[in-house]
Amino acid sequence: MAGNEICKVGIETLDEALIGGIPTGSTVLMVGSSGSGKTTLCMQYLINGAKEGERGVFFTITEPLFKLTKNMEGFDFYDKKLIESGMVNLIDLRIISERLGLDAEKYSVEDAGALLDILQDIADELNVKRLVIDSITALCYRLQSPEMIRDFIFKLGSSLAAMNCTTILTSEVPPKTYKFSQHGIEEFIADGIIFLEDIDRKGDLIRTLQVVKMRGTPHSRTRFAMSISSKSGIELSPLLKSSRA
Amino acid sequence: MAGNEICKVGIETLDEALIGGIPTGSTVLMVGSSGSGKTTLCMQYLINGAKEGERGVFFTITEPLFKLTKNMEGFDFYDKKLIESGMVNLIDLRIISERLGLDAEKYSVEDAGALLDILQDIADELNVKRLVIDSITALCYRLQSPEMIRDFIFKLGSSLAAMNCTTILTSEVPPKTYKFSQHGIEEFIADGIIFLEDIDRKGDLIRTLQVVKMRGTPHSRTRFAMSISSKSGIELSPLLKSSRA
Amino acid sequence: MAGNEICKVGIETLDEALIGGIPTGSTVLMVGSSGSGKTTLCMQYLINGAKEGERGVFFTITEPLFKLTKNMEGFDFYDKKLIESGMVNLIDLRIISERLGLDAEKYSVEDAGALLDILQDIADELNVKRLVIDSITALCYRLQSPEMIRDFIFKLGSSLAAMNCTTILTSEVPPKTYKFSQHGIEEFIADGIIFLEDIDRKGDLIRTLQVVKMRGTPHSRTRFAMSISSKSGIELSPLLKSSRA
Amino acid sequence: MAGNEICKVGIETLDEALIGGIPTGSTVLMVGSSGSGKTTLCMQYLINGAKEGERGVFFTITEPLFKLTKNMEGFDFYDKKLIESGMVNLIDLRIISERLGLDAEKYSVEDAGALLDILQDIADELNVKRLVIDSITALCYRLQSPEMIRDFIFKLGSSLAAMNCTTILTSEVPPKTYKFSQHGIEEFIADGIIFLEDIDRKGDLIRTLQVVKMRGTPHSRTRFAMSISSKSGIELSPLLKSSRA
Amino acid sequence: MAGNEICKVGIETLDEALIGGIPTGSTVLMVGSSGSGKTTLCMQYLINGAKEGERGVFFTITEPLFKLTKNMEGFDFYDKKLIESGMVNLIDLRIISERLGLDAEKYSVEDAGALLDILQDIADELNVKRLVIDSITALCYRLQSPEMIRDFIFKLGSSLAAMNCTTILTSEVPPKTYKFSQHGIEEFIADGIIFLEDIDRKGDLIRTLQVVKMRGTPHSRTRFAMSISSKSGIELSPLLKSSRA
Amino acid sequence: MAGNEICKVGIETLDEALIGGIPTGSTVLMVGSSGSGKTTLCMQYLINGAKEGERGVFFTITEPLFKLTKNMEGFDFYDKKLIESGMVNLIDLRIISERLGLDAEKYSVEDAGALLDILQDIADELNVKRLVIDSITALCYRLQSPEMIRDFIFKLGSSLAAMNCTTILTSEVPPKTYKFSQHGIEEFIADGIIFLEDIDRKGDLIRTLQVVKMRGTPHSRTRFAMSISSKSGIELSPLLKSSRA
Repeated sequence: MAGNEICKVGIETLDEALIGGIPTGSTVLMVGSSGSGKTTLCMQYLINGAKEGERGVFFTITEPLFKLTKNMEGFDFYDKKLIESGMVNLIDLRIISERLGLDAEKYSVEDAGALLDILQDIADELNVKRLVIDSITALCYRLQSPEMIRDFIFKLGSSLAAMNCTTILTSEVPPKTYKFSQHGIEEFIADGIIFLEDIDRKGDLIRTLQVVKMRGTPHSRTRFAMSISSKSGIELSPLLKSSRA
Repeated sequence: MAGNEICKVGIETLDEALIGGIPTGSTVLMVGSSGSGKTTLCMQYLINGAKEGERGVFFTITEPLFKLTKNMEGFDFYDKKLIESGMVNLIDLRIISERLGLDAEKYSVEDAGALLDILQDIADELNVKRLVIDSITALCYRLQSPEMIRDFIFKLGSSLAAMNCTTILTSEVPPKTYKFSQHGIEEFIADGIIFLEDIDRKGDLIRTLQVVKMRGTPHSRTRFAMSISSKSGIELSPLLKSSRA
Repeated sequence: MAGNEICKVGIETLDEALIGGIPTGSTVLMVGSSGSGKTTLCMQYLINGAKEGERGVFFTITEPLFKLTKNMEGFDFYDKKLIESGMVNLIDLRIISERLGLDAEKYSVEDAGALLDILQDIADELNVKRLVIDSITALCYRLQSPEMIRDFIFKLGSSLAAMNCTTILTSEVPPKTYKFSQHGIEEFIADGIIFLEDIDRKGDLIRTLQVVKMRGTPHSRTRFAMSISSKSGIELSPLLKSSRA
Repeated sequence: MAGNEICKVGIETLDEALIGGIPTGSTVLMVGSSGSGKTTLCMQYLINGAKEGERGVFFTITEPLFKLTKNMEGFDFYDKKLIESGMVNLIDLRIISERLGLDAEKYSVEDAGALLDILQDIADELNVKRLVIDSITALCYRLQSPEMIRDFIFKLGSSLAAMNCTTILTSEVPPKTYKFSQHGIEEFIADGIIFLEDIDRKGDLIRTLQVVKMRGTPHSRTRFAMSISSKSGIELSPLLKSSRA
Repeated sequence: MAGNEICKVGIETLDEALIGGIPTGSTVLMVGSSGSGKTTLCMQYLINGAKEGERGVFFTITEPLFKLTKNMEGFDFYDKKLIESGMVNLIDLRIISERLGLDAEKYSVEDAGALLDILQDIADELNVKRLVIDSITALCYRLQSPEMIRDFIFKLGSSLAAMNCTTILTSEVPPKTYKFSQHGIEEFIADGIIFLEDIDRKGDLIRTLQVVKMRGTPHSRTRFAMSISSKSGIELSPLLKSSRA
Repeated sequence: MAGNEICKVGIETLDEALIGGIPTGSTVLMVGSSGSGKTTLCMQYLINGAKEGERGVFFTITEPLFKLTKNMEGFDFYDKKLIESGMVNLIDLRIISERLGLDAEKYSVEDAGALLDILQDIADELNVKRLVIDSITALCYRLQSPEMIRDFIFKLGSSLAAMNCTTILTSEVPPKTYKFSQHGIEEFIADGIIFLEDIDRKGDLIRTLQVVKMRGTPHSRTRFAMSISSKSGIELSPLLKSSRA
C-alpha cells in the first residue's frame, strides 16, 4: 500500500506547485481541450520517471503507436532507449482489444471488464510505478450507454486505487467550457485535477496550467503560462496578469 | 428530539457567522466543485466535535480510507487518537456494501434501502452527534434512474430528520455554475446550505465560503475568503472587495 | 365567492406596494431560491392574519413540524399561542399521507387526488382565510411524471380558485435564474407573483423582493431590499441604486 | 373575405405605430411573461372595439370569469354594460369543456378538435369581429404530446384564417428570454407579433411594448414604455434612451 | 445544366454585394426571425425577375394566398398583372396537399415524397427560373420525426440541385440566436446564406442584412442596414458603425 | 508507413505557422461554420499538391460536382487540367452510393461500411497523397443513430490512419460556438485541428484562421486574418489587434 512518498512529474515549476510532486498512488485527471498539450505532458511525466528508475506505461486509445512515437521524436526530452529498454511501455488499447478478440471500436460490458483486467495485469507484470491512460474520454466513447460508462469509471477507479502506481488519466473537454470531464463522473475517481486551459491574449491563445485539486498536499493554485518547445518540452512560467482574458 | 442547542463547527469565523454554530439536528448541504475543500472542512468539523466530546462518523463513497487518513495526516488539527478511540469513525460505504453482499458500484432499490438502514443503525449504535456523508452526489451516481435518486434523497432526508445528530452532506457541482446540487432535489432535505466557490482573482482562483441558508439562526450571509493550510486547516477571513470577479 | 376585499400581508412596505394587500381569494406564487426567506415570509403572513382574526393553515412537505416551530421561535413576531389556539394550523403533508395509507415520498395519480381532497377538506373545516403550501416544488417532486405534475397543478389551481381563501404557494427555483417555477406551469394558476432574488453587492448577497404580478390591483413593481431579523422578521426598505448588480 | 380595413386597438400610440391599427382578419401573437399586461391589453382591445360597435369574445383558459371581471372592474375603461349587452363575451373554455363532457384539464385529440369547432361556432354565431384567446400557451399545456400541440396550433391557424375576425392570441414566455412562444410553432400562424418585455431600469422593471411584425402594414418598430393605471388602462409613451438595459 | 450566369435579385446594393447577383441555379437560405422581412424580400425577388422576363413561383405553407396578396398590394414594387399573367405564380402548399388527398397539416413519408414530386412538376411545367419556398421551417414542422425531416431536406436539396432555377428557401429562427436553421441541416443543401438580423440601436430594433455565404462569387460580407417601405420595398444602406450593439 | 516528411498546404503563411506544413499521414479537422471558406481552402490544398506532383482526391457529399467546379473556376489558382489529368479527382459520394445500390441520402450500417471500403479502395487505386472529405458533418447526418455515427467516425479514423496520405476532414459547426465538431467525437480521430472563425469587426465579419492543434510539429497558435479573392484564393495576414471582438 502506498506510503507518503512523492512522485515527481519532472517539470520543475509544477513539482514546486505540488510541494514536491504528486502523492504516490494518486489518480490524477488531466483536463484540457484538443491541442492543449495533455499527451505531451503525460509522455514527459513517464520519460522523467523512467530516467529516475521508475517504470511506466502509456495506454493510448486513439493515436496509433507509430504516430505517437513519431510525434515525440521531435522533443529533446524524448529518449528512444527508454522505450526500447521497457522502462516506458507504449500500448495501443485497440491492438490489445483485437488480440482479445474484441471489437476494437465498441465494447460490451464483458469487453470493458476484460480490458480492465488486462490493463491491471499489464501494470502488475511490468511492475510500473507510473501509468497513463490517454484518454479516459475516448475510452468511454467505446462504451455503449451512460450506465456502462458510469460503471466502468467507478470500476476503473477501484482498480487504480488498489494498484501501487501513480496514474494520470487525460480528460478531453470542449474548449471554453468549465467542466472537468465529459460525463461529470470521472472526477469522482480522481485524487487530483490538473486543468489545462487556453486563454485569450489579444486574439491569440495562451496555454495555461493550474492544479485545481490534489489530495494530500497543500498545493499552490496559481495559474501558470505553459509553453511547449522541442528543446524543453512542457515548461511553466508566471502568467503575466495583463494577459488575462 | 433535538432542542435549541448549537453544534459548533470549530472554525471560529464560521461559527460567528452562524451565530454560534449549526442548530443541532440540522442537515446541512455543503456545496462546492472538485478541490473546493469540502472533505477537509467536514473532517475538521468531526475532529473538532470529538475534541468537545461529541462522537462522529464520516461515510465516504469514493475515497478509500487509507487515502483519506493519509491525506488528513498532513494537517495539524488531525488527531489519530480520536480515530483510534472511536470518537471519529471513518466508514467506507463500498466496504459496507460488499459486506452486505451488494454490488459496491451499483445499487438496486433494495440495496439503497439496506444501505440507508445500515447507515442509520451505525449512527444509532455509535450514538454519534455528528454525521458526514461525502458525497451525496457520488452516492446518487450509484443509483440507476432519476426516480431511484429522487426516492432515495427524500428517504435519506426523513431518516436524517429522525436522527438526533447534526449532518453535513457534501454536494459536488461543476465549477462556475450556480446550483446547489446535481439533481436539484438535494436542497429540499437540507436545513442549511454552505456554498464553497472559487472566484477569479486576476487569473488565480480564490476559495470562498458563504452561508446561503441556515434555518433557525439569523446567520450572516457574508462571503469569506477561505484558506487551507497544514497548520490551521480551514480558515476564513474577510474577502477583499477588490478581489471580486 | 370572494368580493373586492384585501388580505393584508402585515409587512407594511409590501402592503403599500400592493395598494393595501393581496386581493382576497388570490393564489400567489412566491418565488425564490433556497435560503431566500420564503418560509419565514409565509409564516409571518399567517401569524399577522391570525392576529387580525383570520384563521390560517400552513402545509409543509419537506420540513418536519418540530423543526419548523423551533426555527420560528427565534422570531419576535412568532406567537406560540396562535398555534395552540388553532388560529394558525401547521400540517405536515407527509404525516397526512401516511394516515391516508399513502407512500409519503411518492404519489400515484390517486394519491395526488386524495391529497388534494384532504387539503380542501381541511381548509373548509377549519374555515381558513389564509393558506400556504411550502413548497409546490417539493410537492410536485413526489409525483412521478411530467404529465402527473401538469394535471396536479391545474387541478390544484381549480381547487384553490374555488376556495374562499388567499393562498401563497412557495416556488423554489435555482439561484441566478430568471424563471418563476420548476415546471413553467405553476404560474398559470397564479393571480400574483412575488419574486425573491438575491443580488450581488460587492461580493455579498442582498435579499430583494419584487411584486411582478398581482391581478386586480395596480401594484408597484419597485424592487425592495429585504432583511430578516429576529426582532422584526421580514422588513423591506428602498434598494440603494448603487448596490445593483 | 377580409378586405383592406383596419381594426383599431383603441390605444392611440399603438394604433399610430400600426399605421392605423391591426389589418382586419389578422391573427396577432401578443407575447410576454407573467405580469407583463397581456390580459389587460386584450380586454382593452375588446372593450374599445365594442364601443365602436364591433362585437368581441374573450376565451380564457386559466382565470375564472369572476376573477377576470373583478380584476377589470378597477379600470376606468371597463364598462360592465358592454358585457351585459353581449358586445363583449367572456367565455371560460374549461366550462365549455365540461359542458361538452370533456376533462377540463386534459384534452385528447378529439377533445381538442371538438373545442376548436365550438370556438369557431361561438365566433360565427355571435358574429364577432374581435377574438381573444388568453392564453394559447395554457391551452396547449392541456394537450398531451408535442405532436398534438403542433397539430392543434396549425389547425387553429387554419380556423382563424378562415374566420372574418381579428384575433389576439396571448403567448406566455419566461422572463428575460428572447422567444415568441413556448413551442416555437405559435408564430407560424401569426400575421403579427406584439412583444411585451420588462426591461431593467436601475433595478426596477419597466414595461415596454414593441410591434415586431405586422403583415400588411409598414408599421413602426419603436419600443415604447408601457404603463398600466386604473384611470387610463394601458398607455404607451416614448422610452427614455437612458433607461435602456 | 446551369452555366455561369447571374440571377439579379433586383435590389441594387444586394446585387452589388453579390458581385452581380446570385449565381444561377443556386439554392439560397434566407435566414431571419419572425418579422425580419423574409417574405417581402422573396416576393420582391420574384417580381423583379418577372419584370426581366424570368418566370417565378412562390410556395407558401403558412400564409393563405389572399392574405399574402393583400399584404403585398401595399408595396409599389408589386404588380398584380405579373400574377395574373402567370409570370409570378403563388401556390399554397396546403391547398396542393388537399388536392392530393393529403392531410394538409401533417405529412407522412409518402406525403412528403408526393409533395416534392408535385413541387418539381410545377417548377418544370411552368419553366420557372426563380423559386421560393416560404418557409422550409414551417414545411418541416409538418413532418413527424427528426428522421423524416432530415431525409426530406436532403431529398429537397437533390431535387433543387437538379432543377434549372435559382431558389430561395426562407428559414425562420428565434430572435437573438446565431444559427442558420431550426434543424441545423438546412444549410447543408444551401449554396448561399443571407442572414437577416435585428440589432439593438439604443432600444429600438434595426433590420440588417448580410451575405454570409455564396458559392461561386467573391461576395462582400458587409452588414447593411435594411429598410422596408411601401414606396421602395426592401432597401439596403450602410450600417452606421455607432449603431452597433 | 509515413515517415517524417511534411505535406505543404501551399498557403505560405499557413505553412510557416505549421513549421513547414502538415506532417505527412496526419488527419486534420478543418472546423468552421457555413461560408467560412472550408471548401475553398481544401481545394487549394489539393491543387497546390497536384502542382507539386502529389495526386489528390476530393470527396463531396452535399455539393454536386458541376457546382463545385463552376464555383472553383472563378479562382486563379484553379487549373482545370489538373482535374482532367487525374491529378485532382473530384468524387461525389452520393453518386458512388447510387452505383453501389445504396440510398444516397440515408445509410445503414452496411452502407456505411461499404462506403468506407470504396473510399479506401479509391484512395489506394489512385495512390493519392492528399485526401479531403467535405464534410464529415454532412456524411454523418446520413447515418441514422448516434451509435452508428460514433462507430463510423472511429472506423474512419482507423482507415485513415492506415492510409499513406494526408487527410483534411471539414467539420461544420454553428456560428459563434466554441466546439470543433457536431458530435464531439470527430476530434478524437484528428491529429490536427485548424479553426476558421468569423469575428466581429465593428459590425462586419472578419474571417480568421488558427492552428489549434497539430501533432508532431511545434506549430504557431497565432490567429490570422484570412481573405478569399479570385486572384489569390485563400491568403493569411496578421490580425490587427484592434479588430478583436
